[in-house]
Amino acid sequence: MFLISDNTAGVHPEIFAAIAAANTGHAPSYGEDPVTARAGELFRAHFGAHAETVFAVTGTAANVIALASLLRPYETALCAASAHIVTDECAAPERFTGARLTAVATPDGKLTPEQVTAFARAGDPPHTPLPRAVSLAQPTELGTVYSVAELSAVAAATHAHGLRLHVDGARLANAAAALGTGLAEAATGADVVSFGGTKNGALAADAVVFLDPGLAGSRRLVQKQAMQLLSKARFTAAQFVALLSGDLWRTNAQRANAAAARIAEAVAAVPGAAVGLAAQTNAVFATLPPHDDAELGRYGSRWAGGPMRRYMAAYDTTEADTERFARALKAAFIR
Amino acid sequence: MFLISDNTAGVHPEIFAAIAAANTGHAPSYGEDPVTARAGELFRAHFGAHAETVFAVTGTAANVIALASLLRPYETALCAASAHIVTDECAAPERFTGARLTAVATPDGKLTPEQVTAFARAGDPPHTPLPRAVSLAQPTELGTVYSVAELSAVAAATHAHGLRLHVDGARLANAAAALGTGLAEAATGADVVSFGGTKNGALAADAVVFLDPGLAGSRRLVQKQAMQLLSKARFTAAQFVALLSGDLWRTNAQRANAAAARIAEAVAAVPGAAVGLAAQTNAVFATLPPHDDAELGRYGSRWAGGPMRRYMAAYDTTEADTERFARALKAAFIR
Amino acid sequence: MFLISDNTAGVHPEIFAAIAAANTGHAPSYGEDPVTARAGELFRAHFGAHAETVFAVTGTAANVIALASLLRPYETALCAASAHIVTDECAAPERFTGARLTAVATPDGKLTPEQVTAFARAGDPPHTPLPRAVSLAQPTELGTVYSVAELSAVAAATHAHGLRLHVDGARLANAAAALGTGLAEAATGADVVSFGGTKNGALAADAVVFLDPGLAGSRRLVQKQAMQLLSKARFTAAQFVALLSGDLWRTNAQRANAAAARIAEAVAAVPGAAVGLAAQTNAVFATLPPHDDAELGRYGSRWAGGPMRRYMAAYDTTEADTERFARALKAAFIR
Amino acid sequence: MFLISDNTAGVHPEIFAAIAAANTGHAPSYGEDPVTARAGELFRAHFGAHAETVFAVTGTAANVIALASLLRPYETALCAASAHIVTDECAAPERFTGARLTAVATPDGKLTPEQVTAFARAGDPPHTPLPRAVSLAQPTELGTVYSVAELSAVAAATHAHGLRLHVDGARLANAAAALGTGLAEAATGADVVSFGGTKNGALAADAVVFLDPGLAGSRRLVQKQAMQLLSKARFTAAQFVALLSGDLWRTNAQRANAAAARIAEAVAAVPGAAVGLAAQTNAVFATLPPHDDAELGRYGSRWAGGPMRRYMAAYDTTEADTERFARALKAAFIR
Repeated sequence: MFLISDNTAGVHPEIFAAIAAANTGHAPSYGEDPVTARAGELFRAHFGAHAETVFAVTGTAANVIALASLLRPYETALCAASAHIVTDECAAPERFTGARLTAVATPDGKLTPEQVTAFARAGDPPHTPLPRAVSLAQPTELGTVYSVAELSAVAAATHAHGLRLHVDGARLANAAAALGTGLAEAATGADVVSFGGTKNGALAADAVVFLDPGLAGSRRLVQKQAMQLLSKARFTAAQFVALLSGDLWRTNAQRANAAAARIAEAVAAVPGAAVGLAAQTNAVFATLPPHDDAELGRYGSRWAGGPMRRYMAAYDTTEADTERFARALKAAFIR
Repeated sequence: MFLISDNTAGVHPEIFAAIAAANTGHAPSYGEDPVTARAGELFRAHFGAHAETVFAVTGTAANVIALASLLRPYETALCAASAHIVTDECAAPERFTGARLTAVATPDGKLTPEQVTAFARAGDPPHTPLPRAVSLAQPTELGTVYSVAELSAVAAATHAHGLRLHVDGARLANAAAALGTGLAEAATGADVVSFGGTKNGALAADAVVFLDPGLAGSRRLVQKQAMQLLSKARFTAAQFVALLSGDLWRTNAQRANAAAARIAEAVAAVPGAAVGLAAQTNAVFATLPPHDDAELGRYGSRWAGGPMRRYMAAYDTTEADTERFARALKAAFIR
Repeated sequence: MFLISDNTAGVHPEIFAAIAAANTGHAPSYGEDPVTARAGELFRAHFGAHAETVFAVTGTAANVIALASLLRPYETALCAASAHIVTDECAAPERFTGARLTAVATPDGKLTPEQVTAFARAGDPPHTPLPRAVSLAQPTELGTVYSVAELSAVAAATHAHGLRLHVDGARLANAAAALGTGLAEAATGADVVSFGGTKNGALAADAVVFLDPGLAGSRRLVQKQAMQLLSKARFTAAQFVALLSGDLWRTNAQRANAAAARIAEAVAAVPGAAVGLAAQTNAVFATLPPHDDAELGRYGSRWAGGPMRRYMAAYDTTEADTERFARALKAAFIR
Repeated sequence: MFLISDNTAGVHPEIFAAIAAANTGHAPSYGEDPVTARAGELFRAHFGAHAETVFAVTGTAANVIALASLLRPYETALCAASAHIVTDECAAPERFTGARLTAVATPDGKLTPEQVTAFARAGDPPHTPLPRAVSLAQPTELGTVYSVAELSAVAAATHAHGLRLHVDGARLANAAAALGTGLAEAATGADVVSFGGTKNGALAADAVVFLDPGLAGSRRLVQKQAMQLLSKARFTAAQFVALLSGDLWRTNAQRANAAAARIAEAVAAVPGAAVGLAAQTNAVFATLPPHDDAELGRYGSRWAGGPMRRYMAAYDTTEADTERFARALKAAFIR
């Protein structure tokens, strides 16, 4: 169980304390409680006064709610072939929306303005679905980060064709930490954002943040049909209050990113090893020389997207953890 | 916020402690952890050695997973017109399954063997959907409870026609407490059970318990597509461990049922008031004489299903709470 | 095969001739041909200059296209419990739209303004779907006809609450013939009409006529996804050209209605028999005294909606046909 | 309108005569008539005694019925990226089934056993959908034809992994004509076949032929929900009777194939032109030298799948047609 995923971690103590603090007597259910109201205000503080938010308990659910708010069944959204909505959500977007995703190959998980333009112009409706949205992940599933300029360019191309932009921010905090920006800037140009807390120390907390008011009107209906309208909503909201009322979102993300940098450094020190793609956030994709070292095999996991191994740091990955990994590398390869 | 719902309550201290106890370091995600394994064993201890369980975080989700495991889009399930799947789930079953529910009127929320038989024989496929399942709620949305004999009779009619039986047990513990049986007996004849913990003191814990092995094979795929496969599954499982490893499920339910009995007693003491239906579990439906008493208006809620008012007791409703309600009744009606 | 349905009839010779006339060499496919253009013009001539039309080949498909243009999965449409979309379409509307239909009981198949208002005000979104549309059938499945005043009142109630009105006009010609109006008047207030040709002498020709331009934009995409975009569209269009360019739609409907009137008259002459509901169009619902007359049993069909027998006249039902039926009645009951 | 598509053609006279012959008085509706029974027998004569058939009116509908009989929403089917179900059906398969298609690149439109095996072994359910079926087109959208040996190999790999094989035979007659086999051999190994008549001279006639009895049971329900259960089914059936009771299916296909061969020959004679892929059936993909010849621009159509132009021959493409095209080529390129 070493460096396998950021979702094998437990709950950060401050977040857990916030959940405990919310457990005081009765409160209105289904999001009518004051903790949920406070979380909504915090999202507005981060993303702007027009932001409307609903909560979910998985990243898949947040993405599906966002896509279902964007797409009718005869419309389609562009995304990278490596996107989580393609590779890890068991076609839940298709089942729930009835719409098709249009996946394109990318070298680094990032969509380009050129791909957006080609997507907007392609197709032959009604024989093919109508282009309607672009869905990008910040950071990507490959751990890469769009710069604010790159986001602006993709968003400009998206909006120029009348499309809407969804940002899958299951790890948006890690991207913002890497960019040194706020959360909103890390999602520049987005019309709707899936914002993840679970991979950043929460128990189960994802949010869908609507920045285009035209998309927000049906959010509670979609949330309910997506089976994400929890009766005791305050306990989800409390997790976001803990993350967003101070710097916890950023310090957690910074720790994970820093740990990943140490992992990448350790890999790079191995002769014949290679770190694939820039390790910009908390994921490191690496190719190691052939080995059958049992200890080393306990770290990271095989990556479905290619021959590399994936090492993920979490908010609670310590220096001791990464040093142990570095020692295992040395023991296996550097005699 | 008095006697409005059993889901305005917080989390029972023992359940909260179990969640906290599960928060120790890293654990495999998506249900591969030991706490989830332990919860699975407990469900087998209660429901039988063949029981296979997946978790969800809302009662709607548990019902949808159960129905989606039963129904193809051209099939239909019989249910009472007052059922939660009809009245409170925003057509999530229809959206997720594509199938229609066949709702029939009942005086008390309970389906009869005669209704099941009529349903099985009715219709004219392919012009109408194929009867496939019966979905009953134990207790019903009206707070009534099927006796074990009634369940057996409905299940026999269901199975005699080759149909499958779903039991919506969002409050199954309350029914079992009322019947004085175990959980499995309170769902006698079921092929799949939605078992709710949230209304019985959990934070967000519902389970789908498959008793017919022929339905269980796709449970993890359906759970994932229904956006209920939480990464940090141990925290849901821990809630069931707390409820099911001892008597907590029953004592919590007994307390709520007993509080409801006191509520019903207080209503019955009001001249001109009437308790509608037998108040068998933790819900009381009541008709009060006309009044404009502000204090009284703070208790319970208007019931969408008719002119009565609904009072719900929770696991933490105290004698002081029900006495205060009784005093309010007296102040308004008994001078 | 006597008086069983208006869809057991073949194709009217003038319609068949029009199909044959369209069979000349190559023509653009998917509705880009001149015959389709001509049919579109005829629909505008009948329904107004803004009418946009797509074709389908079953009445179910036309209704589903109309409903799918109206409803998102979290919205619902009011309809009579006896409506074809409820009783005869195998839940195709639910499967294709993901939305629920809200069916209400009616004595005569007709919705009232009061029912519309109650529907618009009911519900508790997001726990229940959002009221969005009203779907009525003209004539109803029970053969009754809304007067223009009744339609206006239902439409006014519908629009007053911001809802949209769908008219299932699978037999709209029969209603217009009964009312002595044009087709548009017979669908007064409609925002979208399913217009049927098949039951009025066509081979397979149904149309969805969009009168609210706000609903029409996606019509070709919905038609394609509903698998109704035929490559050789000219042959469907030709049937509408034959029906709508002159009086054929009306004369066919008048003949069927007149034959039904003769059937009703014959039934009414039987002591102890009763014609249920007003036989206003081409359907007669009747209760006959008990008998085991084999000849009589060959006429009409058992009606799923109740204990009555249903006799349907078609455009080609002759006086000889209805006289034969009258003789059978006399032989059985009047000695 | 020259060589643009095989669906711009009209109806073959023998097929039209069969439709006319079916137009005699009343007949049972919804496929209970003798013409439909006769067509069913003919499908059994061609495909085997266990073949069960339902009809549809578009190729998209036939494919969707087949896929919906195979796939539950959490399952997936492998297909070529160039397949009609991917490129030309507006995501109708996704909307109707809720399932995802897994599209892979192919040089020639043909799937290989290796691709099937990789598909069967790939994925990580429940994070990805369960492999369930393989869908190939015979001939492919690129006009290429699987040999019987190739089909056998793909089918063997499919069945070895417990998957089912769908053959999209919208132009199966053209493949059989090219192979010199019967229809069943041209779909060797199939569990369910979409068989198209429309592109081979019919008005609107597609069939779904179930060869695996385990898939056939729900065929009428799926057909009804797919809005393909026509009331006057005899007129669809009559088209298949005309095609399948003698050699019409083959002679029509042979004519189209032979015309395409002449087209390919004419292209090949142009210096600098190239015929892409083998022109094995009635489609020719060609690259011509740059030109701005208006007459030549009237032939064929731009192909969405690449830079080539597509020329389609139909059953009624004459030698005069292809000679005129050859002359236009000469006039433009060979002075």
